[in-house]
Amino acid sequence: MKLDLESDKTGFQERAVRRHRGSRATSATDSVIEEVPVALVVNGISHAVMMVTPRDLQPFAVGFLLTEGLVSKRSDVFDIEVREHARSFEIDITIAAENFVQLKQQRRSMAGRSGCGVCGVESLELLDLRPERIQAAPLHAEGALQPAIAIAASELGQHQELMRATGGVHAAAWCDAYGNVLRVCEDVGRHNALDKLIGHLALEGADMGRGFVFMSSRASYELVRKAARMHIPMLATISAPSTLAIDIAVEAGIKLVSFCRQDGCVEYT
Amino acid sequence: MKLDLESDKTGFQERAVRRHRGSRATSATDSVIEEVPVALVVNGISHAVMMVTPRDLQPFAVGFLLTEGLVSKRSDVFDIEVREHARSFEIDITIAAENFVQLKQQRRSMAGRSGCGVCGVESLELLDLRPERIQAAPLHAEGALQPAIAIAASELGQHQELMRATGGVHAAAWCDAYGNVLRVCEDVGRHNALDKLIGHLALEGADMGRGFVFMSSRASYELVRKAARMHIPMLATISAPSTLAIDIAVEAGIKLVSFCRQDGCVEYT
Repeated sequence: MKLDLESDKTGFQERAVRRHRGSRATSATDSVIEEVPVALVVNGISHAVMMVTPRDLQPFAVGFLLTEGLVSKRSDVFDIEVREHARSFEIDITIAAENFVQLKQQRRSMAGRSGCGVCGVESLELLDLRPERIQAAPLHAEGALQPAIAIAASELGQHQELMRATGGVHAAAWCDAYGNVLRVCEDVGRHNALDKLIGHLALEGADMGRGFVFMSSRASYELVRKAARMHIPMLATISAPSTLAIDIAVEAGIKLVSFCRQDGCVEYT
Repeated sequence: MKLDLESDKTGFQERAVRRHRGSRATSATDSVIEEVPVALVVNGISHAVMMVTPRDLQPFAVGFLLTEGLVSKRSDVFDIEVREHARSFEIDITIAAENFVQLKQQRRSMAGRSGCGVCGVESLELLDLRPERIQAAPLHAEGALQPAIAIAASELGQHQELMRATGGVHAAAWCDAYGNVLRVCEDVGRHNALDKLIGHLALEGADMGRGFVFMSSRASYELVRKAARMHIPMLATISAPSTLAIDIAVEAGIKLVSFCRQDGCVEYT
């Protein structure tokens, strides 16, 4: 598989704006985060369309396939080709024949299942709210959690390149157990940012049991479910969790930590 | 149609937490925003499952049907019944027979289409990126925009009841042209918050051409598309827009204003 990881895409575009202050306005240009429809085509069949910031699209595809359970390991993905159209992208993915058979069976009952974790699911019976328990050792001894969060919280900002340019985009960071930020991916969708990050980690062969994901966003159901599929032991977020995110984290055995700041955090138990 | 708009649901639940500061932790409870799977069943057939904060579910259903183009007017919705299950809700909706025929035709090509605006769409051809131009007069004369934004921005916080309780939830507000906040709906999903708001407005028979939507979130594609379906002349957001939100707003003739603060805002032209 030929990967072109260092994309020439910036992920943002300049747009004309009028800046208003009181009753006066001035013209200017602003950098705006890109949101583009990306079609995922698996072994020649359209699987889903996601709204994505067009950077790191190959890692995104690998991450999506893994976190949605369409493949179980990176080596099941044979090829990924990204095609740019006028107002959209298409990612052509070739996966192992046995995965594809399984996917076609899933599709019969789950037409349109997509990366939001739930949107597109047609009926409640098809929802996957019972994650397996993850196989990973706890990351932190008593008292070692907040010091790691403090380091991650202080480091994240300097890696949020697209956030600095545009003021509106999610970041997913991979941190070692001490909170050192090792890699950051950004996207208009928090689930896409996480898929891009997990795709990069899978392509690098990183051990996802030995670090944690730190997200600039809230913690929702689909982030916990995606992390659980990869047996990531801890998910930390800057903003609040939902009840279902907590429930799924408890059920999967993932440590969920939210409202992460340099001086404190909240762990859901 | 019997409506039970004043739900007894709070939209949040108490959860056990450990608050960490430095190497110390204390036990407590926190209010956490509810995120629950809600199945939308239209004339007996499962249409979509959305993750929703379970309040205002009847207005949510009305708004979803309207903004997704499943019905074209409020009176096409004959009945809405909300059933609570152990870990989910089901909304049984009865719509006019001619709408249902149309819906079934759509479903053949758009299985799983749901409220995210795009998730569940299987291929790019099915994306609806070409909104009709809205029929609505401009809301503001030159110089009158920012004063209205300033009022909305100063008033919104006092209506964000769930935000105060939980620290993590989106708000969609309906404002008159002067920026007075007339109604606010909150939800874990920004598109749900908007659907709840539009459902309430439709049920009240409000004129959606004579005010604007003010959202606590970023401006993404699906919010603009939903507003366009209702011919709402302006969408204002506290956080940043995406390129596609701007493009669709320009195409539909909706005024899009972001980074809305008491002292300024940015209009995309």
